Amino acid sequence: MTEIRHDVIGIGNAIVDVVVHAEDAFLETEGLVKGAMSLVDAERADDLYDKVGPAVECSGGSAVNTIAGLASLGVRTAFVGKVRDDMLGKVFTHDIRSIGVEFKTAAATDGPATATCLVLVAPDAHRTMLTYLGACVELGPEDIDEDEIAASAITYLEGYLWDPPAAKEAFVKAAAVAHAYEREVALSLSDPFCVDRHRDEFLALVESHVDILFANEDEIMSLYQAESFDKALQHVRGHCRVAALTRSERGSVIVSGDEVHVVDAEPVDHVVDTAGAGGAYAAGFLKGLVDGADLARAARLAGICAAEVISHLGARSEVSLGQLVANKLG
Amino acid sequence: MTEIRHDVIGIGNAIVDVVVHAEDAFLETEGLVKGAMSLVDAERADDLYDKVGPAVECSGGSAVNTIAGLASLGVRTAFVGKVRDDMLGKVFTHDIRSIGVEFKTAAATDGPATATCLVLVAPDAHRTMLTYLGACVELGPEDIDEDEIAASAITYLEGYLWDPPAAKEAFVKAAAVAHAYEREVALSLSDPFCVDRHRDEFLALVESHVDILFANEDEIMSLYQAESFDKALQHVRGHCRVAALTRSERGSVIVSGDEVHVVDAEPVDHVVDTAGAGGAYAAGFLKGLVDGADLARAARLAGICAAEVISHLGARSEVSLGQLVANKLG
Repeated sequence: MTEIRHDVIGIGNAIVDVVVHAEDAFLETEGLVKGAMSLVDAERADDLYDKVGPAVECSGGSAVNTIAGLASLGVRTAFVGKVRDDMLGKVFTHDIRSIGVEFKTAAATDGPATATCLVLVAPDAHRTMLTYLGACVELGPEDIDEDEIAASAITYLEGYLWDPPAAKEAFVKAAAVAHAYEREVALSLSDPFCVDRHRDEFLALVESHVDILFANEDEIMSLYQAESFDKALQHVRGHCRVAALTRSERGSVIVSGDEVHVVDAEPVDHVVDTAGAGGAYAAGFLKGLVDGADLARAARLAGICAAEVISHLGARSEVSLGQLVANKLG
Repeated sequence: MTEIRHDVIGIGNAIVDVVVHAEDAFLETEGLVKGAMSLVDAERADDLYDKVGPAVECSGGSAVNTIAGLASLGVRTAFVGKVRDDMLGKVFTHDIRSIGVEFKTAAATDGPATATCLVLVAPDAHRTMLTYLGACVELGPEDIDEDEIAASAITYLEGYLWDPPAAKEAFVKAAAVAHAYEREVALSLSDPFCVDRHRDEFLALVESHVDILFANEDEIMSLYQAESFDKALQHVRGHCRVAALTRSERGSVIVSGDEVHVVDAEPVDHVVDTAGAGGAYAAGFLKGLVDGADLARAARLAGICAAEVISHLGARSEVSLGQLVANKLG
């Protein structure tokens, strides 16, 4: 039996965010869908960058944000994702390693640059994201180290991995290895547009490969093309060991076989920026599972983490989540 | 007579800031002088970067911050500074151009990387800066376009330009051109340690090349090795056309020949981060001069800009300074 060295290993897109302020009028002029994540090619990414104001750069990425949350909770983590051997690749590598996450994926030595996500922050703090996948398209099965997956209790994936074509092969390999070693596979659906792009594959995955599913209301309804949350809920029951379904201020619903929990959202004085809420929720929930907590407690823990992230600008916690949870739950 | 196209052209170090949180204990362990700017070589810069947490990158630089303030005030500006043709050079170039500053200096195609400043933000918001000059050392007289200087009412320089050796030659050339066309030369002393490094040269400059001098209390006392602010004040009178001396919460003193103004600081509800105060003050003051305001009004305008910058984290304004000043002064 391989020893567990990582409680959670994440596989996802390795992205540096380029954050700028943008007026609603700019989004309209450029025909951008406010609040959504859209994929752009290098040319469109450059075109938009030329049109926006001064930016701030910081590491981003959906699964990465969850792994960062787990690291902040004191969980042993690793990450698999592809950067180029360029300056932004160096920035990404520094940032993730500096928070204690093991990151060993070889950087690409040619091909597209490190991925960037142009994040347009509107005056009301809504974020519109334009992702240039760059080097992420180079992630493939060869980047999956079987020993690392075997040594991880949970392999966590983001739905956005289905956008770069070779990455899904990497996922299928990782999932097969994880299950061969009786580990668990978790998936976050990422966003409803992403679900739209890959619905059939996600449906097959949820039935056969995913043990722990994270989805918000829009995503789970999109997956099953259901007209209500409750109808989607009936579909997902039994399709994976645990589904954690988030509903913003209405809290979350956890289903696992016959077990169902409806957990209230953690109160927040003032919601500043909802970006990162889902990622933080997943971090808290996985922390609960890693610690052997029951599902209700894991959901509570998840809600505390999500509440922290939405109470300020930015998708990652500003305080030690481990300390925060200890203060709240003892 | 050459037409004025730029009200102010800045010459300075083109730097990308790498901003991280750091505890006081880390500063002590590494032997760093809290609150100061120190120069580091590439090896030490890498060593420190490896030891700090996740960072946020944004454009920085002392003269650049003043030019950005002027652009926010609606002043026609240009900037001369050296980046490398690398990713951070692209970031710097994008950011400065995106705020309407003309920036045409050719990027270096070999040699050191674009300059970075590792900014360590302590829990009390004090900033300790470690600057790796990188490509800035490549700035030389060949980068000074005589037509651009001739077309600028004021040429503004930062004291930090004396650190990269060839840059001071660029400055001497720019000052000579400016004076040949009866333009004015402004200098900010940057910081008291910088004054210590280059005292004799700064003394000669202030006597013969500088029309408008910006210095804070520590800097002007360091320049004249004076034991009190008042003694330094007596020294500087008559050495340049205008000296604007800032004293934090005690406001500023403007001397110009026989004219002296003692102007109170603009009230601030809560001082969050004093970084950028001097640069914003210089921007407001130069805006006043460009508009033909009297010295007292220029100082008031300067104080308003400084107050805005110290009321939040970061060295640049978060609102349109032009709008702010219009609201306050009509």
